[in-house]
Amino acid sequence: MITALAGGVGAARFLRGLVQVVDPAEVTVVVNTGDDDWFHGLYVCPDLDSVTYTLAGAQNAETGWGLAGETFATIDALTRYGADTWFRLGDRDLATHLVRTQLLREGATLSEATARITAAWGLAPRLLPMSDDRVATRIAVAGGELAMQEWFVREQCEPPVLGVRFDGAGAATAAPGVVDAILAAETVLICPSNPVISIGPILAVAGVRDALVARRDRVVGVSPIIAGRPVKGPADRLMGPLGIDVSCVGVAREYAEFCSTLVIDAGDASRVAEIEAVGVHAVTAETLMTDARVAAALARDTLAAVA
Amino acid sequence: MITALAGGVGAARFLRGLVQVVDPAEVTVVVNTGDDDWFHGLYVCPDLDSVTYTLAGAQNAETGWGLAGETFATIDALTRYGADTWFRLGDRDLATHLVRTQLLREGATLSEATARITAAWGLAPRLLPMSDDRVATRIAVAGGELAMQEWFVREQCEPPVLGVRFDGAGAATAAPGVVDAILAAETVLICPSNPVISIGPILAVAGVRDALVARRDRVVGVSPIIAGRPVKGPADRLMGPLGIDVSCVGVAREYAEFCSTLVIDAGDASRVAEIEAVGVHAVTAETLMTDARVAAALARDTLAAVA
Repeated sequence: MITALAGGVGAARFLRGLVQVVDPAEVTVVVNTGDDDWFHGLYVCPDLDSVTYTLAGAQNAETGWGLAGETFATIDALTRYGADTWFRLGDRDLATHLVRTQLLREGATLSEATARITAAWGLAPRLLPMSDDRVATRIAVAGGELAMQEWFVREQCEPPVLGVRFDGAGAATAAPGVVDAILAAETVLICPSNPVISIGPILAVAGVRDALVARRDRVVGVSPIIAGRPVKGPADRLMGPLGIDVSCVGVAREYAEFCSTLVIDAGDASRVAEIEAVGVHAVTAETLMTDARVAAALARDTLAAVA
Repeated sequence: MITALAGGVGAARFLRGLVQVVDPAEVTVVVNTGDDDWFHGLYVCPDLDSVTYTLAGAQNAETGWGLAGETFATIDALTRYGADTWFRLGDRDLATHLVRTQLLREGATLSEATARITAAWGLAPRLLPMSDDRVATRIAVAGGELAMQEWFVREQCEPPVLGVRFDGAGAATAAPGVVDAILAAETVLICPSNPVISIGPILAVAGVRDALVARRDRVVGVSPIIAGRPVKGPADRLMGPLGIDVSCVGVAREYAEFCSTLVIDAGDASRVAEIEAVGVHAVTAETLMTDARVAAALARDTLAAVA
């Protein structure tokens, strides 16, 4: 049994590699839901959907979000009604949000809705939202707070970040199966996701960090930072302002309490000693997942790092 | 001031003619909402939307429903989730349902949502739902009852009709402005719509029939039945089983209490005496609206019939 903590695109690509090298039915993925938000009356879960679509091989490989071959007739039609349409929901993607929202309104938990959606896509791995309770990542900027997608998509990550908080995390409980999946797994993987806004919200849910600490010897992370820069996304704009060094060493320090081993890019081999100095075993590998073959090799190397 | 009672396609075509021959801003349209229903968590108002799209010149002229040049990516994508997709909601049409549903969930009345939607389409006529309360047309068939769209679209009008009722009509009140619009209008038009399931629900709302009776001298209808057959739609399958003769004479009898004048097709001129015999003045005109020019002429003839 393997349990992975995951955010969006980077995690999705890594997981697609993972299911090439292990039995997909043995994999549980705990997914960040701090990015979730309401758009046009529909509940949208960007990371759950990115992982789902990517594991199904249906993702848009160019944009990194949404479905391949997507169209945007509905969102464009919404402009007539003065709706904010900066969050570009695709027509086929909307079907997912319609189904999920209807299930939630009928009383289903997000876990139950996710199980229905992933079954419809024929996924063998089990996807769990980190919590069935609402946790909303909020980005403090000059003049106030933005919802995650407002900062990330609407504002294109431009307003300097003053702080990050996970609204609701204090009262949230881990979704059914999340803590057990961490405690029972042979290996726990921290996918190459943004430490602050992808992995951070998962850690903020009561019980998750403690479970990871208890399994520290079996927890292995993959640094999303290569040569001091995120592969994709705004990790640098979030880590720096929060006092986290934008490097694989900074990631190691963040994860040291609950993560015994960190896979870093071969190009960062010179940082191994610094990582070992904070008590984390560093292993180098090719971490830039340019294609599915590299992703599979990275997954194999990551599992081997704690074998 | 002109007030029109309207169902879907036939009414929409007639109204498009009407606004060619009178000041559109002087027109109030009271629209049937008995066909409204929930699909995929969205509140859909087929007749309000048919009238809106047609008055905006955006309707699909071939099918008679939905928008011209429409696509169906979302509804097709819903099949993956096992959703019932016999009600073919188009992608651009979905924007209307998303906006309306969100407004309703935020506490707006259907009247308020309709005002927002028609303003977005730049309509000059005022569109009013017959009621802000839910009234659901139910079709009794062998073995039970069907929702209107189930019988009409899913079952293609095939199950023989045993009865029709308007669930909720007893407790429904007319939407703000409806009764006043009837009482204050110089002329009240009954559009060429299905007497049973388009005009019937409007009449079932408390206060509407009484207001029409009070204005009987100024109420003029247009028969949707030509030569014993509906131009479009299932009026024959509904009128017959309910004991209404499928003819302009049957329509006249249904409307006689509140309608002083009925415009019938020139081809039905032989029925004039029968209509006059039930106390309704019959006027012949070209009623088959093959194009906008004919619709405008029919509107002019209809207004002249009570001038």
